[in-house]
Amino acid sequence: MSFDYSLGEIAEYLSAELRGNPEVRITGLNTLQSAGPGELAFLANAKYQSQLQDCQAQAVLLVAAQADGYAGDCLVLDNPYLGYARLTAWFATEPKPQISIHPSAVIHPTAVIADEVSIGPNVVVEADAVIGRGSCLEANSFVGARTRIGERCRIGSNVSIYHDVIMGTQVRIHSGSVIGADGFGFAPDGQGGWQKIHQLGGVSIGNNVEIGACTTVDRGALEDTRIGNGVIIDNHVQIAHNVVIGDNTALAAYSGIAGSAVLGRNCILGGDACVVGHVTLCDNVMLTARTLVTKNITEPGSYSSGTTPLMKTAAWRKNSARIGQLDDMAKRLKTIEKKDNN
Amino acid sequence: MSFDYSLGEIAEYLSAELRGNPEVRITGLNTLQSAGPGELAFLANAKYQSQLQDCQAQAVLLVAAQADGYAGDCLVLDNPYLGYARLTAWFATEPKPQISIHPSAVIHPTAVIADEVSIGPNVVVEADAVIGRGSCLEANSFVGARTRIGERCRIGSNVSIYHDVIMGTQVRIHSGSVIGADGFGFAPDGQGGWQKIHQLGGVSIGNNVEIGACTTVDRGALEDTRIGNGVIIDNHVQIAHNVVIGDNTALAAYSGIAGSAVLGRNCILGGDACVVGHVTLCDNVMLTARTLVTKNITEPGSYSSGTTPLMKTAAWRKNSARIGQLDDMAKRLKTIEKKDNN
Amino acid sequence: MSFDYSLGEIAEYLSAELRGNPEVRITGLNTLQSAGPGELAFLANAKYQSQLQDCQAQAVLLVAAQADGYAGDCLVLDNPYLGYARLTAWFATEPKPQISIHPSAVIHPTAVIADEVSIGPNVVVEADAVIGRGSCLEANSFVGARTRIGERCRIGSNVSIYHDVIMGTQVRIHSGSVIGADGFGFAPDGQGGWQKIHQLGGVSIGNNVEIGACTTVDRGALEDTRIGNGVIIDNHVQIAHNVVIGDNTALAAYSGIAGSAVLGRNCILGGDACVVGHVTLCDNVMLTARTLVTKNITEPGSYSSGTTPLMKTAAWRKNSARIGQLDDMAKRLKTIEKKDNN
Repeated sequence: MSFDYSLGEIAEYLSAELRGNPEVRITGLNTLQSAGPGELAFLANAKYQSQLQDCQAQAVLLVAAQADGYAGDCLVLDNPYLGYARLTAWFATEPKPQISIHPSAVIHPTAVIADEVSIGPNVVVEADAVIGRGSCLEANSFVGARTRIGERCRIGSNVSIYHDVIMGTQVRIHSGSVIGADGFGFAPDGQGGWQKIHQLGGVSIGNNVEIGACTTVDRGALEDTRIGNGVIIDNHVQIAHNVVIGDNTALAAYSGIAGSAVLGRNCILGGDACVVGHVTLCDNVMLTARTLVTKNITEPGSYSSGTTPLMKTAAWRKNSARIGQLDDMAKRLKTIEKKDNN
Repeated sequence: MSFDYSLGEIAEYLSAELRGNPEVRITGLNTLQSAGPGELAFLANAKYQSQLQDCQAQAVLLVAAQADGYAGDCLVLDNPYLGYARLTAWFATEPKPQISIHPSAVIHPTAVIADEVSIGPNVVVEADAVIGRGSCLEANSFVGARTRIGERCRIGSNVSIYHDVIMGTQVRIHSGSVIGADGFGFAPDGQGGWQKIHQLGGVSIGNNVEIGACTTVDRGALEDTRIGNGVIIDNHVQIAHNVVIGDNTALAAYSGIAGSAVLGRNCILGGDACVVGHVTLCDNVMLTARTLVTKNITEPGSYSSGTTPLMKTAAWRKNSARIGQLDDMAKRLKTIEKKDNN
Repeated sequence: MSFDYSLGEIAEYLSAELRGNPEVRITGLNTLQSAGPGELAFLANAKYQSQLQDCQAQAVLLVAAQADGYAGDCLVLDNPYLGYARLTAWFATEPKPQISIHPSAVIHPTAVIADEVSIGPNVVVEADAVIGRGSCLEANSFVGARTRIGERCRIGSNVSIYHDVIMGTQVRIHSGSVIGADGFGFAPDGQGGWQKIHQLGGVSIGNNVEIGACTTVDRGALEDTRIGNGVIIDNHVQIAHNVVIGDNTALAAYSGIAGSAVLGRNCILGGDACVVGHVTLCDNVMLTARTLVTKNITEPGSYSSGTTPLMKTAAWRKNSARIGQLDDMAKRLKTIEKKDNN
């Protein structure tokens, strides 16, 4: 797989100001530190500015302020990181899906398959499912009854999508993920056991959503679990029944959202940040890694809990043990303060 | 998919007292807040009682004390939530598996398939496996050699069950889960590397067990990993080799049980509650979300660790840093107390 | 499945000193406590020494110091646990893969399949992939374009391996795992949404690596994500884009390594130990369960954070609330100390 673009055509695509030779050939992207001949690098973070000096890249994406001191070929734009991000599409090595339905796929006669669809080997599509134009179902994936997949979606190998799931256009789901499994709903049966609560809702996913690998989105108990437009979700994420995720919210790996929690728009959850059930977060909330949210958040901003300083295990044990004495310590401190004030 | 029952037949099924018109048609279930004409709602939690007034539901499930002030059609029973749970089976939208073996399934000639079994497309069943009467293996699932699946089990699409796993009746396993992969057993080889310990045990699962999506239950090192009857397990749960889980215990998402830990009966683990290896929990232990158990629990009750108050990140950083000084603070406090007492 | 070896041949394989009858038949392995006639047990931990007295095992693996007081047949070696580990291979119950390509497998004509390979039902191998001699792809697994699998690898059922992944010899990957899905790379698009960063790197995995079930290793953004030789990885582990894992490092369940973090050699991460992005750990670092590493570790040793004493929930709530007052408490303590010193 090889690429070859002129710096000029890249400048045009990115609406960047070209300083230097537009005929230079660009055959790859790389970091400032690693880039060599033929490679285009980017300087997105001022802290790497010192690498510009010794950089071996064929050309560099950077902001005007940094371009002024750079003698090589470069593309000047306000947001080099975004420019790099947009340009990656030109260098993608992922095989383009073949527009065809593999003969080994098992597609129910009542399923509706639009034009320009790619269905890989051993894919199973059940009754009354709908696959939109330009979508791709990769090998060994499963689409349940009445599920509707929009246009230009890409469903990875070994993905399972249950019945009555609805998704918009340009949704990507990576391998091993499961959409629409039963929410974890059981009622105590009064005899020490559990009565299953059948999950009667579905899952609804907006447009331009990306879901990582081994992630689960459960179906709703009565109404749908809902993922907004532009939401990005990493690997090993758990979205429980009846959760609502606002547009453009980002969930890093192991984020867990318990039942009926509601997340606003443009929130960012760090790795392993979890939200307990029936809690609501407003728009523009950020949670640092491993935070546990146990109550509503009504004001935008960055929130944290749980994480503590890293230390040698022996030192940690000493300090950690004191946490169990904290309430006692607080009371003793108050006692002393009173005494001192008398 | 449409449903239509009379309130009278629902009353009979639930052994509920019917107040109102038994001929009323019920076509769906919903919450008190969202229910409309034709829908049966339930009032299970007194804190939602105020919603009863304006409720648009066709009929309501509730307790006698609340029925007295309600003018509409209703069903009176001691436990409305359990009644709702039992009734969901009547409104389940999940397609009933077709009793047939899909021609694309690959079933070893020595496997024993009982009557009334449903085996979906591309399912693989290996040598000497046994599939019990009324069970269903969904598309692209895998059943290893000598594994025995009981009656009326339902194995989701893309589930992997290794060899020598035994499960009872009415076990449900959701998509993407893996039962019987090797436990994580390695011995230091004395040269800086690891010697694999082949895992010679299997997995044994009782009756009426439900296992969520992307959950793993590892096979035992020498003896079986064991899941009792009536156990309910959510998504992304890890049950390591030789763990024993007592009857009716519930494990929420991300619960992790390390090797050889033993959980009693009727325990409830909140999300991300983890138990380290070789530890034993007695019956009726509850762990709040994200608790880590590092020692035996011998007395029933609710236990916690690790979670801390949620606060703005800046405030958290200040407090969190102090945790690293706690042992020092405790000693200084004691010093002052001594001084003050002299 | 039955086994039958003489104690003599086992002694020879383990280079152990045989005390007793070399003709004794060994048909299984077990723990000291559970072993019965025909079974070989091992005493690896001095704390179980008292079990030796009443042990019903046919023979025992132990060190010389403990053998001296033992009357039964035994094998004496320096490291009985390693001996047991090595011996498990002789008693493995896992079916040997059949050397054949199942007719239902879908293998691209340009893929290169070496000799003595086992490819199970419904396996899909895409263009230009290479499967090395003696390797086994189990049912319903997927191997993407240009991916190269070395010799004697074993890829479990329902595993997904994306394009351009390279692995060495004797790599084992358990069911449900996903290798080479996109790293979680998105740039803010300046309008509240996210611009996908196509992930142009691959994944490179060394020799003798074991990867558990439902684990993910993401492909790199520009360069490869890299797993060294002899690395062992448990279930539900997340290895993000551009992570580098040194040789022989061990990652327990739920270990999460965020983007571009670098782990040294011979590190051991306890369950749910996580490392944030762009952080480096030197060789021989141990992290206790649930530790979160937020900065570089440059000195070998055991590190911890986050875990706190387990207590009854009511007591925990009191102490936990005080954590939110810690900074205030620390200042008040200092104030009193000053007063007292005046």
